[in-house]
Amino acid sequence: MNKILRVNRNDLDVELEAGVNWVKLNDELTDELLLFGCDCGSSGLIGGMVNTNASGVNASRYGAMIQNVISLTVVLADGTIIKTRQRPKKTSAGYNLTGMFIGSEGTLGVVTEATVRLHVKPQHETVVVGQFPTIYDTTQTVAELFRRGIRPEAIELLDKDMMHCINYSGYWTKEWLEVPTIFFKIGGLNETVVEETLKVVKDVSLANNCKDFITAENKEEGEELFSARKDAFYAILNYGKNEIDEDVRLWVTDIAVPLSKLSPVLEQIRVLIANSGFQSVILGHVGDGNFHADIFYTAETKKKCEKLVNDMMLIGLANEGTSSGEHGIGNGKRKYLELELGVDAVDTMRKVKMALDPKRIMNPDKVFKIDPSDSGEY
Amino acid sequence: MNKILRVNRNDLDVELEAGVNWVKLNDELTDELLLFGCDCGSSGLIGGMVNTNASGVNASRYGAMIQNVISLTVVLADGTIIKTRQRPKKTSAGYNLTGMFIGSEGTLGVVTEATVRLHVKPQHETVVVGQFPTIYDTTQTVAELFRRGIRPEAIELLDKDMMHCINYSGYWTKEWLEVPTIFFKIGGLNETVVEETLKVVKDVSLANNCKDFITAENKEEGEELFSARKDAFYAILNYGKNEIDEDVRLWVTDIAVPLSKLSPVLEQIRVLIANSGFQSVILGHVGDGNFHADIFYTAETKKKCEKLVNDMMLIGLANEGTSSGEHGIGNGKRKYLELELGVDAVDTMRKVKMALDPKRIMNPDKVFKIDPSDSGEY
Repeated sequence: MNKILRVNRNDLDVELEAGVNWVKLNDELTDELLLFGCDCGSSGLIGGMVNTNASGVNASRYGAMIQNVISLTVVLADGTIIKTRQRPKKTSAGYNLTGMFIGSEGTLGVVTEATVRLHVKPQHETVVVGQFPTIYDTTQTVAELFRRGIRPEAIELLDKDMMHCINYSGYWTKEWLEVPTIFFKIGGLNETVVEETLKVVKDVSLANNCKDFITAENKEEGEELFSARKDAFYAILNYGKNEIDEDVRLWVTDIAVPLSKLSPVLEQIRVLIANSGFQSVILGHVGDGNFHADIFYTAETKKKCEKLVNDMMLIGLANEGTSSGEHGIGNGKRKYLELELGVDAVDTMRKVKMALDPKRIMNPDKVFKIDPSDSGEY
Repeated sequence: MNKILRVNRNDLDVELEAGVNWVKLNDELTDELLLFGCDCGSSGLIGGMVNTNASGVNASRYGAMIQNVISLTVVLADGTIIKTRQRPKKTSAGYNLTGMFIGSEGTLGVVTEATVRLHVKPQHETVVVGQFPTIYDTTQTVAELFRRGIRPEAIELLDKDMMHCINYSGYWTKEWLEVPTIFFKIGGLNETVVEETLKVVKDVSLANNCKDFITAENKEEGEELFSARKDAFYAILNYGKNEIDEDVRLWVTDIAVPLSKLSPVLEQIRVLIANSGFQSVILGHVGDGNFHADIFYTAETKKKCEKLVNDMMLIGLANEGTSSGEHGIGNGKRKYLELELGVDAVDTMRKVKMALDPKRIMNPDKVFKIDPSDSGEY
């Protein structure tokens, strides 16, 4: 179940089994400047990524799984095996079964194979970092870059608390301002094209009050700069264990809102967290309006943290948001699905579920309770 | 039903009613350099475009409707109204109901409103045309450009017969070589970026035997050049009426195959048509492997033409293709859907249909016969 079956270089797609790890796939493709577009946690397998509609840092440029899967081979509840569609880049032939299975968390069938799109790595790429006085300045910068047609390879927001953890860790030699910071990857056809793009990124950042705009002088410096984002998780854990509790845990939320709502939502959440007594850091896939607030808690404070997370969810949903940008619903967020979409939309999902799995054997009660009157917790 | 409800400029999306015409939408957006990405026939309305997963010339760059719809408001068969999801750019919350309705041809519900993505027009754009000795040279050129990370705004293939119609029409002053021809639109951040891209397009075209590479000197010349593609339909009709029959009709096919299969498929189809006695022209959205073979026929030759089209479909399907790249199935292509996807995949669609519309009142028997044992034609 973990074989790469066929790389179709001239079609920019690859056929593979569901157990292939995306990092391994990219390692296989690296000589050819090809790239699989979704980059969730490094242990992610294609089948799981299909089932959660996973994405990651690259999604702002290359989309989530829903934009990157061409077809799926699926074993249905009754043992029937279907392939959802053929391999051309587009089709208008019949229902979009491919999209129906993406994000269905194993409740409609078992994905065994997939054909996924490949992207072409930019021939030239660099890293720049902008440090801003406020979150509002960062989201205005990103919105204006998009309006000018600039689509960076990555646009990652780290809040002031996250930047404090990075300084605290001492893993990097650079001392950062502890303010909202965007890590950009800017790619293009060649150095000239990237330089032209960089000029605009710098101008727009400075016009939006950027206090420090740091440009990598070469590839190694770019990798060093971006590693502060890439390895942020270790800095978070290090801080939490030293400053909060040796057994500290992290509650990772996954709210996404329209970009125009991101700054007011993050401000409301900042006040909420400040008043709660908890400490947190925020990392945002800002191009997608998706952010992970990582809240430090302990076994003793778990219940209180759950309440805080619930209040954060309600702020997200009240701002045209989703309770999950890329992690999925599972059991934990089931109760928010009806708040987000309404009972009739969830009932429509129930009808699809019961039509494909009348015996309720495929990962039952994930995403939603199949029987809404069932109040048991499991 | 034809109101634009809200343009969310900083989110690059627009909320609108299903009766809005996409050309009118683009007219409204033109001052802001914003663009709706799908460009089917100019009379297309958003609701119909959702239902057929429509696309057009821009799809190679901006995707089909499936890549451009964020959410839908749908009236279901039992009168329930649902909104398929909220407005963030990505979500992993629940089944992908949005994608389920796209391309379902009105068989699952009536779309009343939609939220769709907007794109940003390139700040600078130009048109270039490459004329090649063979179709193979054109597809190799396009594949190599993609492999170098170049994504033109449009890449339209016209075959030698189509170029003959254009010369024949006398609508344009330029006399074209009557050989396979690609019309490119190349956009970018500014003139420098477009120039850098153009250099590569020219190099790759010449390396693939391009005989004539024509560059627009300015915006007007670009529009004039591209108008040969844009107004090709009139040249086709003019040729058919004058040279074939005053009452000539056009059978427009809509096959799509993986790009690597396009050249061999078009060669097989060329031989098939040449042996059939019919005349035709071919226009291809080559970036998507999607082509329209427009076959001239008359009332008398209709049956024979149907047989020819059937044989073409079988060639497409045998090459990992689809019977419809962007027009949909309706009644006319129902019989190909099972050949393309297998009876079990179509049965899965039937289960979804019956779950959402048990009384079979929504556009019944389009896409597939609800009861597969029903052999009546209607």
